Amino acid sequence: MNSILSQLNQILEQKYILIEEEDKAPYLTDWRKRYTGKALAVVLPRTTQEVAKIVQLCAANQIALVPQGGNTGFCGGATPDDSGEQIVLNLKRMNTIREIDVANQTITLEAGCILQTVQEKAAEQDFLFPLSLGAEGSCMIGGNLATNAGGTNVLRYGNTRDLCLGLEVVTAKGEIWNGLKGLRKDNTGYDLRDLFIGSEGTLGIITAAVMKLYPLPISQWTTLVATDSIASTIALLNLFQKRATSLLTGFEMMTQESLALNEKHFPRMANPLKGNPPYTVLIELSDHESEAHVRQLLETILEEAFGAGLMTDAVIANNLAQAKTFWHMREHITLAQAEEGANLKHDITIPLSALESFIQETDALIKAQYPGIRIINFGHLGDGNLHYNIAPPLDADHQAFNAAHEKPIYELIYSQVERCHGSISAEHGVGQLKLEGLRAHKGPVAHDIMKALKTALDPQNILNPHKVVSI
Amino acid sequence: MNSILSQLNQILEQKYILIEEEDKAPYLTDWRKRYTGKALAVVLPRTTQEVAKIVQLCAANQIALVPQGGNTGFCGGATPDDSGEQIVLNLKRMNTIREIDVANQTITLEAGCILQTVQEKAAEQDFLFPLSLGAEGSCMIGGNLATNAGGTNVLRYGNTRDLCLGLEVVTAKGEIWNGLKGLRKDNTGYDLRDLFIGSEGTLGIITAAVMKLYPLPISQWTTLVATDSIASTIALLNLFQKRATSLLTGFEMMTQESLALNEKHFPRMANPLKGNPPYTVLIELSDHESEAHVRQLLETILEEAFGAGLMTDAVIANNLAQAKTFWHMREHITLAQAEEGANLKHDITIPLSALESFIQETDALIKAQYPGIRIINFGHLGDGNLHYNIAPPLDADHQAFNAAHEKPIYELIYSQVERCHGSISAEHGVGQLKLEGLRAHKGPVAHDIMKALKTALDPQNILNPHKVVSI
Repeated sequence: MNSILSQLNQILEQKYILIEEEDKAPYLTDWRKRYTGKALAVVLPRTTQEVAKIVQLCAANQIALVPQGGNTGFCGGATPDDSGEQIVLNLKRMNTIREIDVANQTITLEAGCILQTVQEKAAEQDFLFPLSLGAEGSCMIGGNLATNAGGTNVLRYGNTRDLCLGLEVVTAKGEIWNGLKGLRKDNTGYDLRDLFIGSEGTLGIITAAVMKLYPLPISQWTTLVATDSIASTIALLNLFQKRATSLLTGFEMMTQESLALNEKHFPRMANPLKGNPPYTVLIELSDHESEAHVRQLLETILEEAFGAGLMTDAVIANNLAQAKTFWHMREHITLAQAEEGANLKHDITIPLSALESFIQETDALIKAQYPGIRIINFGHLGDGNLHYNIAPPLDADHQAFNAAHEKPIYELIYSQVERCHGSISAEHGVGQLKLEGLRAHKGPVAHDIMKALKTALDPQNILNPHKVVSI
Repeated sequence: MNSILSQLNQILEQKYILIEEEDKAPYLTDWRKRYTGKALAVVLPRTTQEVAKIVQLCAANQIALVPQGGNTGFCGGATPDDSGEQIVLNLKRMNTIREIDVANQTITLEAGCILQTVQEKAAEQDFLFPLSLGAEGSCMIGGNLATNAGGTNVLRYGNTRDLCLGLEVVTAKGEIWNGLKGLRKDNTGYDLRDLFIGSEGTLGIITAAVMKLYPLPISQWTTLVATDSIASTIALLNLFQKRATSLLTGFEMMTQESLALNEKHFPRMANPLKGNPPYTVLIELSDHESEAHVRQLLETILEEAFGAGLMTDAVIANNLAQAKTFWHMREHITLAQAEEGANLKHDITIPLSALESFIQETDALIKAQYPGIRIINFGHLGDGNLHYNIAPPLDADHQAFNAAHEKPIYELIYSQVERCHGSISAEHGVGQLKLEGLRAHKGPVAHDIMKALKTALDPQNILNPHKVVSI
């Protein structure tokens, strides 16, 4: 092992090879503190060539590498195992924005760029970089790509995958694939880009990317709308999709229970809609014409929705500050849950046409089996993405309850997801957390294809082994 | 071989196994009549299970299969070789629309559905299925997916890839992968969908798909705009992208030479812009609000463009019929070229920021080398996609000129494409036509990954061998 470290030292300065426990510690536990691993070293390369050399060294010595960005993942995908034989390869020093191409509306940047920085640099040139999620102050674009991150702008701009035009990747052999092209059309063979995106560092290490930029909207209007059923919430969504089409940039659903929890722990984040209705929907429109245009469009659609009986009440944000409060309300649900104690999180997608049946049946099954249990359901409804979370009964010991019931509750929810042809991981990925259930979820044919792909591209199994798929 | 045919007959009725030369002939020559192959048989399955059984039979006997849809491809991807040992598997009988899910805004359909039928069925339910291309009356959705077809709506809605949410695929083993999920978010492992899309039937046979639907626009305005340089044309595009954003659904560029050829062969398709300016741009806006809204937006942007000196003239279509004429003008360039005689077609993409330099340098190089040569350049400029076509000098024997110079002209153009980090196949794919040049274009690392993927998923090389990549 000393020989490996000394060979690493021929690639990187000593200070970029962390071997002391206290130096390594921040890289060895995941964001949610579910997993803590060990590592031979944490290495911090600055260039793609350094990454390639490190992979070559590891390939020659059959040492496993765990690629890591901002370490904000929810599924333990960037945490090493506990063997102490893996090397964590953190890309935070690769944080150069290589180019902003104004005419082509693209940005070429390295994997270690922090998402918020990318948003800011794009805005300086009057562009929107649409990817936006809770961890944007610390997550990195390489991790966003590796997990195909979602977030709040998917409804209009798609997942990270949809924002990417080209990649630079270091393969399991330590070769560099330069696929950094900023092209909207390129049908020259297999779609390697999308294969690496979402593969969580198990097929190659993404070191740089060309991403799409969009014109900055000049006006945004945010509103909270009260509805009394999932069916009318979906009809409301369909109405907004039809009338506002791509001006619709946010459609978030929050249940009464979610916002009651907010009010309990953060009284300033209480629902401004009278009586905290069964469902509160946050709707955002973004416009490139004028404030008057979008305001009028919003009011017209709300009138139509009211007339059609799809909604019972609405509050339009009077200014940007109030719009931000509405979004904070949405984001505070997760924090309120944390205040309430440990809970069981499920990041699922259901086709919109099956959503009402999913929620009704799953709610009923869970409540029948676990009296007093609390269902905190909210999410990016416009994408069919629910964060269907479960809190133990008020009087239960949370840790004990979760330990005893986590697995059967997962199984109950996931079997409902299967029944509705949904996904057990909408935007958080697989990592370690969902590795085990994946074969059953994907079916043997798809899972065998995944194994064949992993074996083809990483036959030594040195890139983030036992994440996503085991070979 | 008789044994194979009799085994096929246990899967399909005799009438769906074509073995007579005259019956097979329509399936053995490609659309552009560049390639003619032979086949042991042409088989016409009706169900996914039949496709699976046929593949199993071929896998057991190491017989190669060539999947085929409407047979409208431009690169010979669906034409068998001349061994007479391959079987053409045409999917036209698999033409059921399985479901239109209104709330989820998706359509589930089989590979043999004709594109135009899909557009019409969607429209009956008040939806737009945005994929649109010249061959839409005969091309099939399976072929669109297999080649990741582009067309005129890519600017707003993306390539076929971007319209697809889920697939059903028969693998090289004859297994069925049911990935028919209509989800906007699904991060459960490797992106198999995008791997099969664009693989031209070499990794699996796409038998069905879930595709996205969009609300039908209620008003469209089409205009022809005169510009005097590529630079101002791109500035005009950027202006429309900024002001009209997703209302911009068409931005097609036609050079003076292209439209002069139109006028020569189809006088009614002459350019209505005075004096046939250096560049004519067809711009289409589609709106979901009102006719008045989009008309005013278009006029405002044109005024701004005129004021900024980006354009010299414009004609707005007065009605839908005139708008269609503008589009016909664009489509007639290809027909005018055919009238003029054989020509050399190049389907390339260039990043917009490099487009002017590409055109100036390539035009100059070609004209210097081949005096009298004519460059017919037009295309989906909004995507950076040029159909940079070459017609021999007026007085030359076209066939002889093409035969003598095709290869060096390709090489000259493709080396310019490489210099500008473009693509040698924007939307037409690889097939047989571009197989040879692909390794050089992709680079050895990407090409080796493609070979590894093909070997992993089709180790016997029975799915459309020697298309896209040879192993």
